[in-house]
Amino acid sequence: MIAVGIVGGTGYTGSELLRILAGHTQVSLMAITSRAEAGSAVAERFIHLRGQVDLVFTEPDPSRLSECDLVFFATPNGTAMKLVPELLARGTRVIDLAADFRLKDGALWERWYGMPHACPELLAEAVYGLPERNREAIRSARLVANPGCYPTAVLLGFLPLLEAELVDPGWLVADAKSGVSGAGRTASVGMLMAEVGESFRAYGVSGHRHLPEIAQQLMAVTQTEPRLTFVPHLVPMIRGIQATLYARLEGSGVDLQALFEERYAAEPFVDVLPAGSHPETRSVRGSNYCRIAVAEPPDRGTVVVQSVIDNLVKGAAGQAVQNMNLMFGLDESTALANPAWLP
Amino acid sequence: MIAVGIVGGTGYTGSELLRILAGHTQVSLMAITSRAEAGSAVAERFIHLRGQVDLVFTEPDPSRLSECDLVFFATPNGTAMKLVPELLARGTRVIDLAADFRLKDGALWERWYGMPHACPELLAEAVYGLPERNREAIRSARLVANPGCYPTAVLLGFLPLLEAELVDPGWLVADAKSGVSGAGRTASVGMLMAEVGESFRAYGVSGHRHLPEIAQQLMAVTQTEPRLTFVPHLVPMIRGIQATLYARLEGSGVDLQALFEERYAAEPFVDVLPAGSHPETRSVRGSNYCRIAVAEPPDRGTVVVQSVIDNLVKGAAGQAVQNMNLMFGLDESTALANPAWLP
Amino acid sequence: MIAVGIVGGTGYTGSELLRILAGHTQVSLMAITSRAEAGSAVAERFIHLRGQVDLVFTEPDPSRLSECDLVFFATPNGTAMKLVPELLARGTRVIDLAADFRLKDGALWERWYGMPHACPELLAEAVYGLPERNREAIRSARLVANPGCYPTAVLLGFLPLLEAELVDPGWLVADAKSGVSGAGRTASVGMLMAEVGESFRAYGVSGHRHLPEIAQQLMAVTQTEPRLTFVPHLVPMIRGIQATLYARLEGSGVDLQALFEERYAAEPFVDVLPAGSHPETRSVRGSNYCRIAVAEPPDRGTVVVQSVIDNLVKGAAGQAVQNMNLMFGLDESTALANPAWLP
Amino acid sequence: MIAVGIVGGTGYTGSELLRILAGHTQVSLMAITSRAEAGSAVAERFIHLRGQVDLVFTEPDPSRLSECDLVFFATPNGTAMKLVPELLARGTRVIDLAADFRLKDGALWERWYGMPHACPELLAEAVYGLPERNREAIRSARLVANPGCYPTAVLLGFLPLLEAELVDPGWLVADAKSGVSGAGRTASVGMLMAEVGESFRAYGVSGHRHLPEIAQQLMAVTQTEPRLTFVPHLVPMIRGIQATLYARLEGSGVDLQALFEERYAAEPFVDVLPAGSHPETRSVRGSNYCRIAVAEPPDRGTVVVQSVIDNLVKGAAGQAVQNMNLMFGLDESTALANPAWLP
Repeated sequence: MIAVGIVGGTGYTGSELLRILAGHTQVSLMAITSRAEAGSAVAERFIHLRGQVDLVFTEPDPSRLSECDLVFFATPNGTAMKLVPELLARGTRVIDLAADFRLKDGALWERWYGMPHACPELLAEAVYGLPERNREAIRSARLVANPGCYPTAVLLGFLPLLEAELVDPGWLVADAKSGVSGAGRTASVGMLMAEVGESFRAYGVSGHRHLPEIAQQLMAVTQTEPRLTFVPHLVPMIRGIQATLYARLEGSGVDLQALFEERYAAEPFVDVLPAGSHPETRSVRGSNYCRIAVAEPPDRGTVVVQSVIDNLVKGAAGQAVQNMNLMFGLDESTALANPAWLP
Repeated sequence: MIAVGIVGGTGYTGSELLRILAGHTQVSLMAITSRAEAGSAVAERFIHLRGQVDLVFTEPDPSRLSECDLVFFATPNGTAMKLVPELLARGTRVIDLAADFRLKDGALWERWYGMPHACPELLAEAVYGLPERNREAIRSARLVANPGCYPTAVLLGFLPLLEAELVDPGWLVADAKSGVSGAGRTASVGMLMAEVGESFRAYGVSGHRHLPEIAQQLMAVTQTEPRLTFVPHLVPMIRGIQATLYARLEGSGVDLQALFEERYAAEPFVDVLPAGSHPETRSVRGSNYCRIAVAEPPDRGTVVVQSVIDNLVKGAAGQAVQNMNLMFGLDESTALANPAWLP
Repeated sequence: MIAVGIVGGTGYTGSELLRILAGHTQVSLMAITSRAEAGSAVAERFIHLRGQVDLVFTEPDPSRLSECDLVFFATPNGTAMKLVPELLARGTRVIDLAADFRLKDGALWERWYGMPHACPELLAEAVYGLPERNREAIRSARLVANPGCYPTAVLLGFLPLLEAELVDPGWLVADAKSGVSGAGRTASVGMLMAEVGESFRAYGVSGHRHLPEIAQQLMAVTQTEPRLTFVPHLVPMIRGIQATLYARLEGSGVDLQALFEERYAAEPFVDVLPAGSHPETRSVRGSNYCRIAVAEPPDRGTVVVQSVIDNLVKGAAGQAVQNMNLMFGLDESTALANPAWLP
Repeated sequence: MIAVGIVGGTGYTGSELLRILAGHTQVSLMAITSRAEAGSAVAERFIHLRGQVDLVFTEPDPSRLSECDLVFFATPNGTAMKLVPELLARGTRVIDLAADFRLKDGALWERWYGMPHACPELLAEAVYGLPERNREAIRSARLVANPGCYPTAVLLGFLPLLEAELVDPGWLVADAKSGVSGAGRTASVGMLMAEVGESFRAYGVSGHRHLPEIAQQLMAVTQTEPRLTFVPHLVPMIRGIQATLYARLEGSGVDLQALFEERYAAEPFVDVLPAGSHPETRSVRGSNYCRIAVAEPPDRGTVVVQSVIDNLVKGAAGQAVQNMNLMFGLDESTALANPAWLP
């Protein structure tokens, strides 16, 4: 049994971690911390977990957490970096679901996240937890930076094209759309149902924190700095991310469908749909799958990739558990095999 | 292993049966039939089941179905009754998720369902599959009539009060609300999102088929015909039923909270919430739970019960699997233990 | 031209007042106040009013406000009562869209609203602004208490029955449902779309502020204290209230359809639908109408009334303008004649 | 007074035409036709128009329609072209809200719409009814082809850039999103709320009928065939279109904000938002406005334009009335001045 702790389990990713781990036969959930909720039962705050989770929230205590084999951080950005060095030093492995360890360049991190980094020396060691790209490194990692939700959807769509050098990295467009749970469980006027329901809009056109994260991973493939225009949008639904990706084909005659199918043939959680498909977010809702379709509209020299994930599962808690499974030598799909929730 | 067949698996209850049974370790899914879809793969129609279910829809064939230990009917009303006698005769047990065997009185059934009944002689034998009321009878039943969605929510709320003879059966009100998946997966203008989204209304005020079904079950408790006013409403959401029940207290001083908690203490799928709670449908979404709260607003002599279920799970496919588990001597919760889907 | 001011125009009722008054040919909008937004343009906060309203928010200033013929208060409860005495003294008439003047009994008000009342001496004078009940008094009122949203829907449904003494006032049930805009434009976790979307629940079962307001108005008809059980619910939609009302008929043989049609024949904003109808909230969305249907399900001795309004229009800003039109001798429908918004 | 007829008024665009024209002081609505509904009152089908429209649906009768000054066709594609020649011959002007007269090339039309064109000789005469581009021609037109919803949003966003020759017409991307009312009021499984609610997806990646319509209009500006990749998406909301447009800047240093503001300074229904804005669809809901923002994300050589309209108003019925106002010498904004509906 893997002894597991969760720091900051009161938001949506924490709630999803609890749901998934409650069904994981190899995990013993030791502690879940929340300063705000310390002393209250998890099932009081999350009624849907009554009868499933009988833990009580506690204050975060590094010495208690270090008794765990693994600690998940489901905290706001900037929290994990303060505790991680001590946990690693004591031999506890860490998966951070926030952004603290996603960028390799500490200066870049500080610019986008607006605060000094508490342990930039760990950035080089942290493994970017996208199993479809870094599976082997994840297995032996002490510290995994769990990818952002948008980056997961966008990268899985672009990787086959860039790895095969089929498109111009100098002109990439990612038009991405997210449900409102991506904004987290924090009081705000802007996320009231009366504000975001029955409406649609872009945001972050001038720059979004997931842009440098995506760019860093793309550059690992292309070597040169790609020029990506990334525009996120807010969809009046709760869960799900859909990304429509546009790139300029260099050359022609390649069987894109076969390329994608081969690239992901061995992947348990990437499902390339038949040609002509339009993946919908509900086809992955509540599941750890990414569903992808690739198409080449006639006479335009453009490839269009559609990619869908559940932002809270493959885009957060599910991918974190997938990484945990890899780190502890378990079947990668343990506790993640459920189909999507539909309708 | 229980050899299981599903007749009519192309709607929402069929889809949920597939999802639940795909995770059931004691079930071998032998056949799923659909005249309209015969020959096509389940995973073509239900993209979310790709990689989970590899069956192909077939024509309904009684001889093949009778090789199953159990057949679920997820068909429109009036279909099961044509095949059930033959299946029972061949030793196959049946759970009907439609209404064909829910009423004991054949004439009443014909009035409400507008067609002659094909096998009224089986109505007496059929067991009404509400485990919280008929558990022992279900265990040995050949034929189970799976309850309607509204009746499940309403009965679980009223039963403790009527069993304890605390309220006047001559004046009961059930104001019930359902998500749109209750209307099924059938093309209609009235269920377009542009018609039912962002709106709320009642329907069936002058009479709904679930009324005689509820009344029959209440009468089994009260012996006299209850006078129930039942008004269903349509909520702009996909899943979930909420019922607010009103009854006139006879006498006073009873601890209603204790009454409900004791009545359901041993029930794996009925969760009585603490006093003062307002159960929300999402707290049971995708799960087999019914969550209930009971309250007595001051100075009014009235008791108010709130009851929520997922119409497709405890209100249909989940309860059907719960019944199957009972019929085959399994742990009642097998394949049904997952928490609700939230957010 | 009527010189009009609005105090507290940054919420949904303020926004609707602005929309309606922008199309009112007899109104000159002089001032709109907001401490938080003072100095910023209305059209900066409400993008949808760009090109329609060119006012700038100002600090509330009684001397400036008293230059208006009429001031609307679209403020939180407890604000209007602090300014109203001075405005009335200076000859400015007032319509309060909050609850400050809705109850006649100051002690009762203080119990439900949890604060002392600043001017209880005005409670007797304030006219409850339900034109269908108090039209003549409204015409000459200095101070109008604009009804709550639930009370408007519930009262218009019950009034014909109680005025005609057809039902038992000792057993009334109002099961009411509201869209989320009823909770206002205030940051809260509980009203995030990820929390209230795709879910349905009751609230306030043990008591809601609109209960004494409804009871007071019913008692003005019945003379005796009615026993009303009122349960509000939250619907995952933005606008609209639907109330399903249940009462016990005393006697029989009355043509309820004719009763309702006659009661409201002369009312410009109450539309009694044909027998058998199920009014939906979208049929009044954005309009000042209340649509009503009355039914008597067979053999139960019960009458069921369905009533729908837009909570922000007939339930707030529209009814306020209707009252203003009456107070200033205008056609009651001025600026309120638009049909509902559908789909 | 303009005598107006509507052919095919039972869908959403017909319903919106009725709503807008009911408030138009210069219009006398003479006839509304529907084969399916002939003989029934408009207000029976459209409850929200009770008390607003007292017409009865009639069979379409060319001789009666030709008594009108203007006939709107709110019919499926392929219907108007059968009646238009006769109406024009009799001196009745026509605005077609369907696609029959949108393409100049009859062969191209037949390929995309899958049927022979009944009067290709009229395609040259028909004026494409985008006032921001063709105002003068519209004034004197006999036959106006009202633009499609996507083309309206996309063209208004691209036109300033292409007219100023600032971007490469060889690489344009339009990622467009529509609410579900765009699919019309026709029974289908795919548009059930249980199917499209809480989900998001693209459609028509391999080709959509609005693509040649947009391309034709762009080519009128650029002279050369532009290469546009157009991908429409379905948003779980009822009304609204948002388009995010991507183009490659040629040269630099141009003040894009000023360019857009100047291009649309005199336009009553195009509102260029301040730099940094993210227009949301609800800011134009129910109104005839198009709201636009233009941005240039740093270091990418790309311009991003966001454009929002209400698909049923500026994208259909509102624009049709705007065209009518122009054709009959009225103030262009007559009956169209209402602000958007929010929240």
